[in-house]
Amino acid sequence: MINKLRIGIVGLGYVGLPLFLEFSKKFNVKGFDLSKKKIDLLKKKIDYTNQYSKKDLKKISNKNIDFNSDILKDCNFFIVTVPTPVTKNKRPNLSAVVSATKIICKYLKKNNYVIYESTFYPGVTEDVCIKIIEKETELIGINNKNKNKNLDGFYYGYSPERINPGDSKHGIKDIVKVTSGSTHSSAKFIDSIYKKICLAGTHQAESIKIAESAKVIENTQRDINIALINEFAQIFSKMNINIYDVLRAAKTKWNFLDFSPGLVGGHCIGVDPYYLTYKANKIGYDSVLTLAGRKLNDDMHNFILKKLYKSLNKNFKKKKYKFLLIGLTFKENVNDFRNSRSIVLANEIIKKGHNLDVYDKNVSIKEFKKKNKMNIIKKPKKNHYDAILITVAHRDVRKFKKEYLYSLLDDKEKGKIFDVKNVFNQKKFLTI
Amino acid sequence: MINKLRIGIVGLGYVGLPLFLEFSKKFNVKGFDLSKKKIDLLKKKIDYTNQYSKKDLKKISNKNIDFNSDILKDCNFFIVTVPTPVTKNKRPNLSAVVSATKIICKYLKKNNYVIYESTFYPGVTEDVCIKIIEKETELIGINNKNKNKNLDGFYYGYSPERINPGDSKHGIKDIVKVTSGSTHSSAKFIDSIYKKICLAGTHQAESIKIAESAKVIENTQRDINIALINEFAQIFSKMNINIYDVLRAAKTKWNFLDFSPGLVGGHCIGVDPYYLTYKANKIGYDSVLTLAGRKLNDDMHNFILKKLYKSLNKNFKKKKYKFLLIGLTFKENVNDFRNSRSIVLANEIIKKGHNLDVYDKNVSIKEFKKKNKMNIIKKPKKNHYDAILITVAHRDVRKFKKEYLYSLLDDKEKGKIFDVKNVFNQKKFLTI
Repeated sequence: MINKLRIGIVGLGYVGLPLFLEFSKKFNVKGFDLSKKKIDLLKKKIDYTNQYSKKDLKKISNKNIDFNSDILKDCNFFIVTVPTPVTKNKRPNLSAVVSATKIICKYLKKNNYVIYESTFYPGVTEDVCIKIIEKETELIGINNKNKNKNLDGFYYGYSPERINPGDSKHGIKDIVKVTSGSTHSSAKFIDSIYKKICLAGTHQAESIKIAESAKVIENTQRDINIALINEFAQIFSKMNINIYDVLRAAKTKWNFLDFSPGLVGGHCIGVDPYYLTYKANKIGYDSVLTLAGRKLNDDMHNFILKKLYKSLNKNFKKKKYKFLLIGLTFKENVNDFRNSRSIVLANEIIKKGHNLDVYDKNVSIKEFKKKNKMNIIKKPKKNHYDAILITVAHRDVRKFKKEYLYSLLDDKEKGKIFDVKNVFNQKKFLTI
Repeated sequence: MINKLRIGIVGLGYVGLPLFLEFSKKFNVKGFDLSKKKIDLLKKKIDYTNQYSKKDLKKISNKNIDFNSDILKDCNFFIVTVPTPVTKNKRPNLSAVVSATKIICKYLKKNNYVIYESTFYPGVTEDVCIKIIEKETELIGINNKNKNKNLDGFYYGYSPERINPGDSKHGIKDIVKVTSGSTHSSAKFIDSIYKKICLAGTHQAESIKIAESAKVIENTQRDINIALINEFAQIFSKMNINIYDVLRAAKTKWNFLDFSPGLVGGHCIGVDPYYLTYKANKIGYDSVLTLAGRKLNDDMHNFILKKLYKSLNKNFKKKKYKFLLIGLTFKENVNDFRNSRSIVLANEIIKKGHNLDVYDKNVSIKEFKKKNKMNIIKKPKKNHYDAILITVAHRDVRKFKKEYLYSLLDDKEKGKIFDVKNVFNQKKFLTI
């Protein structure tokens, strides 16, 4: 279809950067990101998401990445990898996708390709993005219905990202990737391009909407499964039954699914379900189950705090406690604290007027302070806290000795350690 | 603890019969079942649940099974394997467990053991069953608190069944079984007895309540996962997106869980969640998520019928249709039609005044007619039906040719085939 492929990637974050690196091994690839800072760091071979080492990034030729979109001007195969978060009201926020699409419009030529990788609800590619391109350019999106009309047009597709931050086992090379395209032949072509880097194979979906649907249900399924375990945890907690003991027994069944209770944040699991429920609502379907799961997971920090306060109030006659919170990122072994439910939890503590230190070795104190008004410390204080909350099971946290944790408590008898992820499996510690 | 073990099994159904057969290989075992008919069949080496062949049952010595409970009189290790269904109001129905417990009371002696295998909510063993025994006998349940008081007592435990009807791969020998006991040493003893037959191993839970909790969440997890896929199916159906195409794409992700949409009946998945939610409700917790899943699954027959009627009404101007329903059991490859949602669906069709034939080669027509007022047929009629609904993916159903199915339709053009489990993967067929 295209003789000399020149790929242009819009967005060099969790999704775009690995794609840029893999495609660069096989094709002529340009990378664009709005953030001058991100580009400057990449040119210095620093990956701010901490997924790649300097050595990994050495292969990037600095002339192939830029924060000026003109870097894309000779490209003919555009891939959009910008984030699709939700608004404060939990509705899809497509602004980055819209901006990226408009940027591409400046460079899009006849018979070029535009592929989206961001999480969408079914219909965003065709009903939102392609409409924008058709409006902004003179070109028509070519699909199975109009493909024989000899139009001046462009092809498009959707190939959802399956990046799992902090998980080096499931890189692009290692996983099967879903692809789709606007016509039979363009779908096949897009699939053939991805096949060059997805060594585990691709799955060419029957349509763009099917590919979009597959993506949006994947993380929704994880969300509901964690929510269910959180519901179990709440029930058993009321009966003084340790959920982790129960899960250990249940997991011995051959088909029991291994999920743990906890806080659910991040850019995928806590967000993607809202894309589905938004679209469902638009077409008159109330996603009772999906939304019940979301609500349950979103309220877990309150359950944790209630349990902790109850336990502390039994031991102390204080109105204000001194807390230490360990773990600020949205998941373990990443440095990204955006969309972190630990921070939501921390803010609840602060709101109640308690004294709070927060600690996370994986997080840049400077970056954290720019975004959050809380007392992030380099080192926990000794003999100081009434309670310690451990919310994220980072590798470095797992290595803590329980004696070290006790040494941070002011009152070793009455003080409490709340081990949300049951990392230490100590009967004396509180857990979910 | 007991020198000469004599096991007495109360209930010889899905759970009790396999247990009887396995334990008989190693111990002196007696089997009791209230049903004279079931015992008579077993004596003729016929398993009414269709799990065992005549050859398998040959090993049963007829003198070891009876419908008279006196068969249990010399036993010292009692195992209760009776069903725990729900009432019409979806509350736990413990009547069979209570009856079984009272029967055991007649034969229970000092230092004997009573083990329950039925699905319970946490607390049924200790708060219901053991209380009954203590009331009906002079014996005291010995637990970790009173074990040093030198009481005239009995030991007890809970070891949940993990029988999967129709699944020969996961027999007692092949799976890990959870065990628990009332004292540390009795737990160990009970575990050692089960280890003799559970060749894949056992998991000795920390307490009886933990073992009960583990059991009750296992099927609840399956229920919610199917419910979620059913919610997806309903959303995508409204958008004319085929859920099975979506699932095929999603399943290419390494951690996507392979569940299918459909009707959820039977004695476990559709029942066990109510045991958990009942207990949760008693202690003041509203199991929003679990109940939302239950409701969704319980309503699926209405979704299917609505979709079918809508499609038929487009093609025909009829008020009454001629339907054929294929599949009457609660799951594939079993002959058990109790708690089948296909029958709930069939009754809805009849209620609307349509003409309905039902067909299932796996079901005994005589038995079916005793319990259900509907026209069960030996062979579907040719050139007769307006629509065919295939609800259960039995092995014999999977072998049907689509030409055969069309031959049953009156109008081959306008007639509809609704393939609930997408067995035939035909774009022309309707599906969930």
